Amino acid sequence: MDKDNQKTNASIIIIGNEILSGRTQDENVIFLSKWFNNLGVKVEEVRVVEDKEEAIVNCINEVRKKFKYVFTTGGIGPTHDDITSRSIAKAFNVSYGYNKEAYETLEKYYKPGEFNEGRKKMAKMPDKASLIYNPSSGAPGFIVENVYCLPGVPSILRSMVNGLKNRISGGKKILSKTISVSTVESEIAKPLEDIQNRFKNIEIGSYPFFRMGKVGVSIVMRSTDKNQIDDCSKQIINFIQKKKIQIMERE
Amino acid sequence: MDKDNQKTNASIIIIGNEILSGRTQDENVIFLSKWFNNLGVKVEEVRVVEDKEEAIVNCINEVRKKFKYVFTTGGIGPTHDDITSRSIAKAFNVSYGYNKEAYETLEKYYKPGEFNEGRKKMAKMPDKASLIYNPSSGAPGFIVENVYCLPGVPSILRSMVNGLKNRISGGKKILSKTISVSTVESEIAKPLEDIQNRFKNIEIGSYPFFRMGKVGVSIVMRSTDKNQIDDCSKQIINFIQKKKIQIMERE
Repeated sequence: MDKDNQKTNASIIIIGNEILSGRTQDENVIFLSKWFNNLGVKVEEVRVVEDKEEAIVNCINEVRKKFKYVFTTGGIGPTHDDITSRSIAKAFNVSYGYNKEAYETLEKYYKPGEFNEGRKKMAKMPDKASLIYNPSSGAPGFIVENVYCLPGVPSILRSMVNGLKNRISGGKKILSKTISVSTVESEIAKPLEDIQNRFKNIEIGSYPFFRMGKVGVSIVMRSTDKNQIDDCSKQIINFIQKKKIQIMERE
Repeated sequence: MDKDNQKTNASIIIIGNEILSGRTQDENVIFLSKWFNNLGVKVEEVRVVEDKEEAIVNCINEVRKKFKYVFTTGGIGPTHDDITSRSIAKAFNVSYGYNKEAYETLEKYYKPGEFNEGRKKMAKMPDKASLIYNPSSGAPGFIVENVYCLPGVPSILRSMVNGLKNRISGGKKILSKTISVSTVESEIAKPLEDIQNRFKNIEIGSYPFFRMGKVGVSIVMRSTDKNQIDDCSKQIINFIQKKKIQIMERE
């Protein structure tokens, strides 16, 4: 556990039956992953779990030990299916009740008489949670140790995440470079493997695509080391040109 | 384990750094989840894991005991980062090598001289795997016990999945009904909770939305029992009308 915690890695936990049922396309993973890249934090696992206490508790207790940061999305609203706060309290074995600061924030946010029972529920949190400011809709997210709980609505999540930058102690920004070539994967598999073996610190991915009737492969390099990416990129372009394969795009 | 296996549930495992890095938006979960709904199989967990043997082996060995069906996507192509087959073999502790049927299928699929090393790799599978026919691009997927391995490219995955219907022994089709209303969640939280307590076999979800300047909530009911959904729906409409909330849409 200590060893793992020294890594600047993260896990994203999507809490929501609407994703598992196929009703809703998740948009938060792609946003949070890019946000973490910039902070030098590598997202190493994503899970989507049901709105069920047992599923959330078990998941959180597994991932919070494995990853430096755990970001959850969803389940912090006012309705019966919003059980993230209660479940996080259970996972950490702490009490669950009104958070004074959250209560006062929400009381001020709503007009007199509009701070009803449903809204009060959003002030209930695990004991000693610290708050995540919500500039969009008032109701705060919260943090318990290394677990950061955010809402599921993408626009609200996005507005809240930027305020968290200073709380994340990441590493060097994760850079990526893509070379898209006009060929099929099997044609480049061997030389690409050789290059991967020479650049152990670069993650090289190969992704076939079919775009506007054209077949191609995107070769993606990821690393925190710009010089190494540049060297690796040169070697890839070198063998691509030797094989007389057309380069379609570089990003 | 026996108890769990009697449930007609499933887990989807996305194998791919490109999803974790935020480079690619996954499209397979939403497709597979809907496909499973129709077969009466409930997707209860999704995980996205790295293209790393240890991550895949650990994940598969955990989920294959928890869920009746495990569908993996990604990592069965010809390049160095395609390590799903080898990792599944390791998870099941069986040997990994050429599958005769897959080898012959691919040999026939490619023109003479084009069945190169990269392509041959796609015939390597865990021992005793049974094949999943690929009508799009030749290379088969495979099945080991309750683990079904499919490619990551959405169009190819879709073309392969239909042939699997007869291999899935599901339950009653999972039905869903949505009522979208012009209000905020906190206004309906209490009556909705009361209805959820009366209908234990219906999963009721509440999802706020902001569409074209309008705020609303989609109330989603899911169950295999049409009559119960209809009853539940009537009770929801009843309290919505009593509260003089406008119904925007029913699906």
